[in-house]
Amino acid sequence: MKIFHTSDWHIGKIVNNYSMISDQTYILDKFIDLVEEEKPDAIIIAGDLYDRPIPHKLAVKLLNNTLTELVINKKIPVFAISGNHDSGARVGFGSDILRKAGLYIAGDTLYDKIELSKNNKSFHFYLVPYTEPTIFRSKYNDIKTHQDCMEFIVNKIKTNMNPLATNILVGHAYVSKIGSDTVIKSESEKPLSIGDAEVIDYSIFNDFDYVALGHLHGRQYVGRPEIRYSGSLLKYSFSEVTQIKGINKVEINGKDVQVTYMELKPKKDFKIIKGTLEELTQQARAAENKTGKQNKDYIHAILMDEEELINPIMALRKLYPNIMSLEKIRDNKEFNLNTDRDYKIKSPVQLFEEFYNSHTNYIYTLKKQQYVTDVIEEVQRGEL
Amino acid sequence: MKIFHTSDWHIGKIVNNYSMISDQTYILDKFIDLVEEEKPDAIIIAGDLYDRPIPHKLAVKLLNNTLTELVINKKIPVFAISGNHDSGARVGFGSDILRKAGLYIAGDTLYDKIELSKNNKSFHFYLVPYTEPTIFRSKYNDIKTHQDCMEFIVNKIKTNMNPLATNILVGHAYVSKIGSDTVIKSESEKPLSIGDAEVIDYSIFNDFDYVALGHLHGRQYVGRPEIRYSGSLLKYSFSEVTQIKGINKVEINGKDVQVTYMELKPKKDFKIIKGTLEELTQQARAAENKTGKQNKDYIHAILMDEEELINPIMALRKLYPNIMSLEKIRDNKEFNLNTDRDYKIKSPVQLFEEFYNSHTNYIYTLKKQQYVTDVIEEVQRGEL
Repeated sequence: MKIFHTSDWHIGKIVNNYSMISDQTYILDKFIDLVEEEKPDAIIIAGDLYDRPIPHKLAVKLLNNTLTELVINKKIPVFAISGNHDSGARVGFGSDILRKAGLYIAGDTLYDKIELSKNNKSFHFYLVPYTEPTIFRSKYNDIKTHQDCMEFIVNKIKTNMNPLATNILVGHAYVSKIGSDTVIKSESEKPLSIGDAEVIDYSIFNDFDYVALGHLHGRQYVGRPEIRYSGSLLKYSFSEVTQIKGINKVEINGKDVQVTYMELKPKKDFKIIKGTLEELTQQARAAENKTGKQNKDYIHAILMDEEELINPIMALRKLYPNIMSLEKIRDNKEFNLNTDRDYKIKSPVQLFEEFYNSHTNYIYTLKKQQYVTDVIEEVQRGEL
Repeated sequence: MKIFHTSDWHIGKIVNNYSMISDQTYILDKFIDLVEEEKPDAIIIAGDLYDRPIPHKLAVKLLNNTLTELVINKKIPVFAISGNHDSGARVGFGSDILRKAGLYIAGDTLYDKIELSKNNKSFHFYLVPYTEPTIFRSKYNDIKTHQDCMEFIVNKIKTNMNPLATNILVGHAYVSKIGSDTVIKSESEKPLSIGDAEVIDYSIFNDFDYVALGHLHGRQYVGRPEIRYSGSLLKYSFSEVTQIKGINKVEINGKDVQVTYMELKPKKDFKIIKGTLEELTQQARAAENKTGKQNKDYIHAILMDEEELINPIMALRKLYPNIMSLEKIRDNKEFNLNTDRDYKIKSPVQLFEEFYNSHTNYIYTLKKQQYVTDVIEEVQRGEL
């Protein structure tokens, strides 16, 4: 059985006021080409299909077109779960009807075992959508952390699990070796909650032959090679600039699991450039002369000039039309200046961060950011 | 072939600050009971599935449960279209996958003919989702009105139509005999546009054997008995207080069409009561003594008292716990007082209306209401 494992599509995401929808359309086309070429027996999307609980309608259309192409035209079963960015109830609409045609979406309820067979071998898929522990806490007093929550779900699954089959779990969570610090995190993953309460120890998945994870944007495995993140489909922040993006091709024969990472190259990359304004403009001109093309990548520029510059963003934009942000190193303090000053199209989270940085000398820690993000989201979801 | 024709479910609707979701859950249960009893071969829902382009997640769940029950458990094909209240793109998510399991939802694109057969007879269904003429206008200069738009669609359908089959069109529009004034309109239908540009002449549908319409909330036929509105599932305003609500049972044998209206009784009715405060309280006490139950209906009370009353709504609410609105006839001028003064949960449309009425002596005409509703919606949809 050959499975494509992907996650964290975040369709409809806006990064520094740039909509990613055309990049996502492009990369999903490439993904479909790869499906055409490799003909997997199943496709897993391990959560964060969308970037928001209520996605833009262009995002809805793109996901619809992609799933229709995979399930109807290519006739490949797709297993998808909601992530912490998705609204489980909305993503799960029609799921019992969709599954009749081979699209298995677990929105806000756990799916029963889904069975596929290939070459007389049984493959059992367990879909675990992202679940806030609070949902369980209201029913079971002793469920407090994400670990408790996943343990509860896994124990439930185990009551009906056949150890002779190949057992595959699909989840969206922050899985690690508890106490260790080895996982690679990125800025664009929204923290699930504050502190260690969100971490799930990998040992919880001992009984599964493959665990297809979503949430962390850097591809990696945790504990053992069969517990794995595919990483996000695209780079969604400059902290991911050195990462390679793509999908896990998972070939499973009984209990034998082989994973190959297959890269998908984006239309526009995320790049950090560093130098004086003069150096950066010269580099760009040289490259443009050589290739005959402008650099369309998403750029974060770090300017090393000592002296004051008049509107450097204008000069850079002529050569890097998709420059996203600019940073100037001066007086040992970094100033960040987003290229777009229009507050109307900045998110409340971004606005608060800018406000905080410009009005205080404190560090805007991850903990503070989490707190503010949580509050703003609670308000925005409006789904009480 | 036996078809159930229903429309205008408006799931998630809020009337005078009362959420209709539990009434809708109740009536859809009754609807499913009726389906169980009558075993129709197909079910039509002619638009306005939801009340808003972005419905509350409880509304999404209720529609999901209902459709799953009909399509998966009862195995009855369902033909649904989006209405002017729905977001076509959102309602159409997964439609090409859902149709494989027997759920045909036309969101924002015209469906090809869907063919069913029964007793060696062919039944062809054409689903026409609600379409703003502006969508077509951008492509075709000569499409200006809803009439132009529907004509264009019907002509397109006709190129591929078999006159020997039974041809059924499902639409969401304001159909009338142009120049006549015979259709029954209600306050809770949102006007499509201003003036006559929204009206479609029924003669456009001459070649169809049955036309299942949605949009008008009062059950009626237009021009001939086979061009028909089922009316809304529930009363959604006091202008609908005398209407009967239910569904059309359509029995078609070739070109012979028989329609029977089947009533569905709501958990709580909409009622207007009129009298002095003393009379109304006495009536309620008498009824309560007789039945042993409070009157849980949604009430609009018209008070005939000449003298000033101190907080009459409090007195009435003890006996009519779901009183929605109160009107006092005094000095030949009607004063409307909504029972809930909390502006936070009133819609912008309501707030504007109250503001207008309290600050001017002009009549708040339908035209003004349409204009304000359009502007507010354009802003709220935010789907540009």
